[in-house]
Amino acid sequence: MSAKAGHTIHGDCHHVGWDNAIPPVLTVAPGTTIEFECLDASGGQLTRTSTVADVGTLDFGRINPVTGPVYIDGAEPGDAVKITIGAFAPSGFGWTANIPGFGLLADQFTEPALHLWTYDRRAMGPAAYSPVGRVPLKPFAGTIGLALAEPGRHSVVPPRRVGGNLDIRDLTSGVELYLPVEVKGGLFSVGDTHAAQGDGEICGTAIESPMSVVLTLDLVKDARLAAPRYTTPGPVTRHLDAKGYEVTTGIGPDLMTAAREAVARMVDMLAARTGMAPVEAYMLCSVCGDLRISEIVDQPNWVVGFYFPRVVLE
Amino acid sequence: MSAKAGHTIHGDCHHVGWDNAIPPVLTVAPGTTIEFECLDASGGQLTRTSTVADVGTLDFGRINPVTGPVYIDGAEPGDAVKITIGAFAPSGFGWTANIPGFGLLADQFTEPALHLWTYDRRAMGPAAYSPVGRVPLKPFAGTIGLALAEPGRHSVVPPRRVGGNLDIRDLTSGVELYLPVEVKGGLFSVGDTHAAQGDGEICGTAIESPMSVVLTLDLVKDARLAAPRYTTPGPVTRHLDAKGYEVTTGIGPDLMTAAREAVARMVDMLAARTGMAPVEAYMLCSVCGDLRISEIVDQPNWVVGFYFPRVVLE
Repeated sequence: MSAKAGHTIHGDCHHVGWDNAIPPVLTVAPGTTIEFECLDASGGQLTRTSTVADVGTLDFGRINPVTGPVYIDGAEPGDAVKITIGAFAPSGFGWTANIPGFGLLADQFTEPALHLWTYDRRAMGPAAYSPVGRVPLKPFAGTIGLALAEPGRHSVVPPRRVGGNLDIRDLTSGVELYLPVEVKGGLFSVGDTHAAQGDGEICGTAIESPMSVVLTLDLVKDARLAAPRYTTPGPVTRHLDAKGYEVTTGIGPDLMTAAREAVARMVDMLAARTGMAPVEAYMLCSVCGDLRISEIVDQPNWVVGFYFPRVVLE
Repeated sequence: MSAKAGHTIHGDCHHVGWDNAIPPVLTVAPGTTIEFECLDASGGQLTRTSTVADVGTLDFGRINPVTGPVYIDGAEPGDAVKITIGAFAPSGFGWTANIPGFGLLADQFTEPALHLWTYDRRAMGPAAYSPVGRVPLKPFAGTIGLALAEPGRHSVVPPRRVGGNLDIRDLTSGVELYLPVEVKGGLFSVGDTHAAQGDGEICGTAIESPMSVVLTLDLVKDARLAAPRYTTPGPVTRHLDAKGYEVTTGIGPDLMTAAREAVARMVDMLAARTGMAPVEAYMLCSVCGDLRISEIVDQPNWVVGFYFPRVVLE
């Protein structure tokens, strides 16, 4: 149990998919601090001894387990749950995979691939992507959300207005996240912890890494929030921006196509420069490169940029 | 003339629209450094004494003049022009407008609006958006590009594979930009200088500000580049990220809709918190807030975030 948390919810108290009929594992008063043990996104199917063959046989019925749910006393539809994100206790192990059929360039990368990471879970220095580079780490929870008003079981894959699989890499320690409540008690769960990820999570996976996180759950009555919002206490890119960026662009009338083109161009450039296999460059881009919309008004063409931090290769 | 530039091209040597039949105003060897005087995006129609009435009577035939074109000796289709961006000499005056029919939330903001800026062109400290905040400045050229292979005149509004109205706020001093050449000599022009802008340029205008810029034009033979790319020598957000961000999100199956929702939610929040009129919040967002794609793989819903730098309101 963390020194700051009054409760620890263990990783075996998890569920797969969202369903407001799942009984809460804990009921707390607003303002309670809780430690959550989170499984990795494979639910333990990928380990330190896994090979690429294990990617091909993943049981998708066990993907993205989340720890919870927690019932927050007094939470009612129209309120918001305020989550203050505390410390992460990373495990030192992680994996990144290309899963066929999943990811921004799924049509180009059709074969499974797997990269296993080890990192110093105390020093949390950059993790080697041997031999080409080192990726700065910044842990966060990829899936963090509340139960939906609609009854029945809902896939955990898509994020929704109540949060869920947001995969927002800036939901790190110190951030305050607000989620709209749709059912009594809110029914909060968290999981899918990542040691690092770029904006977009372009190959579909990050540095997927089991870890614990300490969260404080509070309540804002009658917040009438339409979608998640958050406040960061400080800069969000200083762990990796010191040497600037290489940037490729996609330009055209469709943001999705432009994003795909920008990423494909970066993959090509990194593979040519470093000798990495294209799928290795693709997975590296997913854990540290950022998709940004540079221009969205100069009709009919928009500009999407893919920002690859140069420090990774230096 | 700048101390470092061997040539100055004055602002009266400009053209509106791209046409590879426009005769070059200068022919240079690769590696030449040139100072360009750039008009503002209105071509001088909006000045320090303008009122909102002048926004309604803008002559769009004079919008976005670019200074040039410059013929680079030896440039041929398949090559790239490498532009090293040097110093800007800002004018101290700028404007931001909501132009009906233009901008990400054009359906919501149907009336013209105008904000005039003055800033210290030497100290370049944050510019007051009185009385609510101060916007950090970082000058760049919104329109920077080469002539298209296709004959005839092409509107300057959309950016294209040869560059043009890219409105990439990171094309600042020290950056190396590469543009694909489609005609002999490349035919380079630049204009639409901005004192500050956020990623997206969401209301359609930035801090539009006439200024000079020193550029070095070089050539990379047989580069076979499909679209613009660039290298930044260092961080791109440290002028405004010290206090972190307020972030609103849009979540759904269409990136454009998600972007609109994220921005509309930030406009609502800023207007409620500060008492600004919504259109004032919208223009403020355009000059300093950033659109980022947080997640683009968790089918069928993507996450777009709008990042508003908290330092602006502190």
